[in-house]
Amino acid sequence: MKLCQVLGIVALGVASFVIGILIGRFAITPDLPGWLKSMSSDGEPKYRSELQKEIQADKIEQNLRYFSSKPHIAGSTQDEDVLASHIYQTWQSSLHGAKIYNYTVLLSYPNSTDPNYVAIVSSDGVESDVSEKVEKILSADQNDPTVVNPFNAYSPAGVIVGNPVYVNYGAVEDFHYLTRNLSMNLTGTVAIARYGKIFRGDKVKNGQTFGCAGMILYSDPADYVAGDLDRVFPDDWWLPGTGAQRGTVLNTDGDPLTPFYPATKSAFFLDEKDINLPLIPVTPIGYNDAEKYLSKMAGNEAPGSWKGKLNLIYRVGPGFAPPLEERKLKLYVKSYNVKRTIRNVIGIIEGQYEADRYVVLGNHRDAWVFGAIDPSSGTATMMELSRAMSRMLERGWRPRRSILFCSWGAEEYGLIGSTEWIEEMGKVLGPRTVAYLNVDLSLAGNSTLRALATPILHKLLFEAAKKVENPNPEEVKAGRKTVFDTWVANMPSSNNPSIPRVGDLGSGSDYSAFLQILGISAADVRYTYDQKYALSSYPMYHSVYETMDLVSRLMDRGFKYHQAVARLWGEMALRLSDDVILSLDCVQYAVTMLRIISDVEEAYGPLLHSKSITPDSVKEAAKEFEAAAQALHRRAENVNKVNPLEVRKINDQLMLLERAFVDPLGVAGNLLYRHVIYAPNQHNIYAASSFPGLAAALFDIENDPDQETRWLQVQKELSILAYTITSAANTMRDHRTIGEEGVQQ
Amino acid sequence: MKLCQVLGIVALGVASFVIGILIGRFAITPDLPGWLKSMSSDGEPKYRSELQKEIQADKIEQNLRYFSSKPHIAGSTQDEDVLASHIYQTWQSSLHGAKIYNYTVLLSYPNSTDPNYVAIVSSDGVESDVSEKVEKILSADQNDPTVVNPFNAYSPAGVIVGNPVYVNYGAVEDFHYLTRNLSMNLTGTVAIARYGKIFRGDKVKNGQTFGCAGMILYSDPADYVAGDLDRVFPDDWWLPGTGAQRGTVLNTDGDPLTPFYPATKSAFFLDEKDINLPLIPVTPIGYNDAEKYLSKMAGNEAPGSWKGKLNLIYRVGPGFAPPLEERKLKLYVKSYNVKRTIRNVIGIIEGQYEADRYVVLGNHRDAWVFGAIDPSSGTATMMELSRAMSRMLERGWRPRRSILFCSWGAEEYGLIGSTEWIEEMGKVLGPRTVAYLNVDLSLAGNSTLRALATPILHKLLFEAAKKVENPNPEEVKAGRKTVFDTWVANMPSSNNPSIPRVGDLGSGSDYSAFLQILGISAADVRYTYDQKYALSSYPMYHSVYETMDLVSRLMDRGFKYHQAVARLWGEMALRLSDDVILSLDCVQYAVTMLRIISDVEEAYGPLLHSKSITPDSVKEAAKEFEAAAQALHRRAENVNKVNPLEVRKINDQLMLLERAFVDPLGVAGNLLYRHVIYAPNQHNIYAASSFPGLAAALFDIENDPDQETRWLQVQKELSILAYTITSAANTMRDHRTIGEEGVQQ
Repeated sequence: MKLCQVLGIVALGVASFVIGILIGRFAITPDLPGWLKSMSSDGEPKYRSELQKEIQADKIEQNLRYFSSKPHIAGSTQDEDVLASHIYQTWQSSLHGAKIYNYTVLLSYPNSTDPNYVAIVSSDGVESDVSEKVEKILSADQNDPTVVNPFNAYSPAGVIVGNPVYVNYGAVEDFHYLTRNLSMNLTGTVAIARYGKIFRGDKVKNGQTFGCAGMILYSDPADYVAGDLDRVFPDDWWLPGTGAQRGTVLNTDGDPLTPFYPATKSAFFLDEKDINLPLIPVTPIGYNDAEKYLSKMAGNEAPGSWKGKLNLIYRVGPGFAPPLEERKLKLYVKSYNVKRTIRNVIGIIEGQYEADRYVVLGNHRDAWVFGAIDPSSGTATMMELSRAMSRMLERGWRPRRSILFCSWGAEEYGLIGSTEWIEEMGKVLGPRTVAYLNVDLSLAGNSTLRALATPILHKLLFEAAKKVENPNPEEVKAGRKTVFDTWVANMPSSNNPSIPRVGDLGSGSDYSAFLQILGISAADVRYTYDQKYALSSYPMYHSVYETMDLVSRLMDRGFKYHQAVARLWGEMALRLSDDVILSLDCVQYAVTMLRIISDVEEAYGPLLHSKSITPDSVKEAAKEFEAAAQALHRRAENVNKVNPLEVRKINDQLMLLERAFVDPLGVAGNLLYRHVIYAPNQHNIYAASSFPGLAAALFDIENDPDQETRWLQVQKELSILAYTITSAANTMRDHRTIGEEGVQQ
Repeated sequence: MKLCQVLGIVALGVASFVIGILIGRFAITPDLPGWLKSMSSDGEPKYRSELQKEIQADKIEQNLRYFSSKPHIAGSTQDEDVLASHIYQTWQSSLHGAKIYNYTVLLSYPNSTDPNYVAIVSSDGVESDVSEKVEKILSADQNDPTVVNPFNAYSPAGVIVGNPVYVNYGAVEDFHYLTRNLSMNLTGTVAIARYGKIFRGDKVKNGQTFGCAGMILYSDPADYVAGDLDRVFPDDWWLPGTGAQRGTVLNTDGDPLTPFYPATKSAFFLDEKDINLPLIPVTPIGYNDAEKYLSKMAGNEAPGSWKGKLNLIYRVGPGFAPPLEERKLKLYVKSYNVKRTIRNVIGIIEGQYEADRYVVLGNHRDAWVFGAIDPSSGTATMMELSRAMSRMLERGWRPRRSILFCSWGAEEYGLIGSTEWIEEMGKVLGPRTVAYLNVDLSLAGNSTLRALATPILHKLLFEAAKKVENPNPEEVKAGRKTVFDTWVANMPSSNNPSIPRVGDLGSGSDYSAFLQILGISAADVRYTYDQKYALSSYPMYHSVYETMDLVSRLMDRGFKYHQAVARLWGEMALRLSDDVILSLDCVQYAVTMLRIISDVEEAYGPLLHSKSITPDSVKEAAKEFEAAAQALHRRAENVNKVNPLEVRKINDQLMLLERAFVDPLGVAGNLLYRHVIYAPNQHNIYAASSFPGLAAALFDIENDPDQETRWLQVQKELSILAYTITSAANTMRDHRTIGEEGVQQ
């Protein structure tokens, strides 16, 4: 070869090489960096199905056996030391970290040597028909020296003697019936109220308001025994006549001595005399005891709806019927309040890309006694879910966002642990929390799923429930393969039977401070009993009979229902932590608000009209909200997922929408409840009111002597609603509209 | 060539080509996508220097001539229609968009045909020494039929006759001197108070509290004339004796009829009788008139510190001295309150990468009369800054974050426009606003810069001031080349003379709702007069003499000082909008808080000690805060800037820190002021108190008959401080610590 040939060949080779490099470098669109690709992709679906497989029923059973083995009331060594430490150590070693938060708070206990009781007493002080001071032991696993006898937390101590009055459920309407229809003067009486329908603290508040000197709370079989009265526990899961429902009668949330601030080391503690504690003694009894008193009462026969299932004529009193007309009812309460340290345990799985976004899962740990249902069925589930996630971490999974597990202390006393934590950590949690998913207890029954949630989480709930295998083989056989199928069959929404009914969040559990103080979207799920029973709660609620034996023998043999709840909870958590775009549905909020408005129009339209008031401004705001929600979801669908800041912008709008419903001034001036669309009903904090400020303004308005003030209040509440909904709509708009006129989306 | 040779050559070429492609594609680290590189880089510094060059003094002068050409009081056609529309159209055409926000609010005006006045009156009603009903016209440009005569907004109408009492500045201490030291009964008297030291609304509130029936406010030359009384306006810029200071005496912020909610279409308006308006008539007069009354007064000679610069013996009264001992002082006020529509104009420059982060710049538009200083010197500057930025947009600049320009309505009446907007848009602004930079007026004088700011903005203020050329050629000759140099020379910090003193934010201007309701970091800057004059404000404050002539002839010939303010404002805005990591300095917050604590210890240490109280928990919290702040800044320095979500995480912590100081319950129960570290002083809302809750609890504590309650309040306030500072520290920690024990940073 000639030199020029050689040079030519070399030149060709070099040129090819260089051209190749240039093409390789520039002409081929470079792949995005791996981290950016991963950051812009949803979590792999395989992890969700792996999580479902990993969750094991027998491990939940083991957990429940452990957690319900001994009484673990708030403030006890068992709850604050043994169980809290167990959870802490478990999470510390299996998750990315764990931390204990301590609070010193006011609790309440019965006197262990001088128990509370009720009796009939003669004018010379002789007592008869004395109530049981302890609940009768019906199976071996109820026998424990640390069982705390039936009492109502925060009842003042005191001995009250007075005429008995039967006040039905103790609702405002019930008291109105006695005072208005029967013109009864309740001053100094001892009210006998049956449990159910409304929160017991509201019953006591009402009794106090209407002048009663004391109150006895009992569980009527009408509300706690759907089956045959002869076949109760231990034969079936119905409440026996010896069971009494413990429970707090505090009407505030969180430590009563440090309202709105955390009960930490540097806290300022109010004096007990300066706070809003119940003023009248109150104690719970079982229906065997209640029968003794109710059967002897004088007065009118109670209205039909007041009648329970005891074999007697329900009479309203006041007083006992002859020959006992001189006798009185005596209420003996020796409970006391004391400061104790309670604990929350928080475990964290750190998110890979958005570690400063939190999906928070929580359950309380404290129980009135053994708590095998409330709350330990939830605790057992949460511990299994955290274990399953820790296994997945070992296998390489990392959520996009952080997941927090929370074990709350002293929920039973008034949501104390969760409220104190929100007070302490609110400034951290408020801007960062995606949602709070609560499981107070995993199962109140084994018939169907039941969920409470703000509308923004409904869609996710449905999607998740469709992914969870039906734990009931009979249902599967009938073609209802998933939890969703049974749910929608049992509880169809009244507006749309193709979706299940989701309840509104009252203040019954630890979601309250998340939603009501910070405006964090929240849900609460459990399996529950057949709604046809019309029970006030599951029968054994807060009695000594809530044990492992009850759950494992009569409610969830094999723990498949627990497992289903764990799976549902995990599915929701993974969707919220791993999806690039948050699965929050703003349109459902609009739909729900428009429905509430039409309910208001239906119920109050003519009355409002007679005062020349309309909810039109609220409706207009809701329609604007709907348009903004639809536009936001369109933007979410079309967002360039590769741009992390564009994704974050949309996600922040989705995440923060619920915050916009919080009014820092509180609903109708009540700073405990600040969510303008849903807050606990003024007369029953267990239940939620829609448009609670308006509902409070309209409640019993026709009987208010100061009509002018009340109607001004109605107008003010309508104005606050219109403002708040418009304000929430603004948060969903494109940022540009803040400075741009008339942009339609 | 043989075939095999040819094949060999081809193979070589192909191989080289392929290897080249492979090397080009994989072995050379691919560049990040261009947008990601740009997203992770600070804005180009050239834009900042271009902005400085673009800002032109003569354009500011033209702007001021336009804005101050006619009176433009809130609610007038000139302010709400002519000027607001001008601004709207300017921004609409030059920025990315503009929007007008309307509110219908309660304003107050004097009766134009029945003016307010003061007189001495005999027992048979004969008036003498009647005060001037209008301010004397001293130059042609003050002549306009729409000038509103001197009045105090929201004074009730009324005619008051009573004994005059001189109450100095009308501070609580002044009233205490009269009532405690002199045992004077002030009931029914007409107080004569001099302007200065404290907000005039607080003077009226105090007068009302101590029983006065009316109040006259006058400007003593001691507070408004530092030069010779013979050489006042139009010869020099000092206040002439014919000038009177208008101003609101409302003690709340925002529309008084719609507290905490925006006065929009659907608002609920309170009735005037149900709101907290001033109860005693009040009117302002000039010192020529004041001299007539003060010179005739009876009673003790006033203490030295009470004496003004009028040529008379200052006596406290009560009443006039012989031969006028039977005469009374008469106050005649015919002002009225009325609902009017006011307007905010908002203009937006949309950020390129973080459009949902806002750097907000604002100035009010409404003036008492011509407002050439207050506020139009600020408006002229803002319009030039927005014009300069719009030019840069044309040249290709786009800020990383959005920039909002705000022209507020009805600031003079009680920060009404800005407060209503915060009420309306708070849910949008709270999570997204980086900082609020206010210029109420550009210059109160031409001596030095003066700034008020929360500590987090101090460092940025200093850095920006170092970038702005000194507008004073004399100063430049003396080696002080930048605005910073003159500033630090004139106002060195008492703790560190190498930096200037930055004042705390009271409630004097539109930053108030940003900081106090939402917790948005804020600053207010202006050029001001030599502090050695010890004036209460610039001399012509709120008088008819605040005209273009005053500013252009006596205060800023050539508008170089205006230009310097515009440049400083722009430099700060560009740093906040374009830096990848926000230029917010959390450590300075710690330093400042620790200094406040040591001030508290110095001032109250022994007294606290005598009650076994210490601020140790607060100090401990501040030290924790300091460590967390340092750790956050270390993380900010080391963050991987290429990862947009890591950057956003740090920035959100920086941006939201100030939010953590807001207590939704308000400081000492006052919902208008919620910033726990800085809120307006309880007795002077112009000034800021550090630790305002504690300051209020300790104020005059030794004279409180209920010592126990007051000391409990002190303890409670210390506890709130410790809690709030700890809570703020938590927001700066690594997210992991929420669930991880004992992580040291």
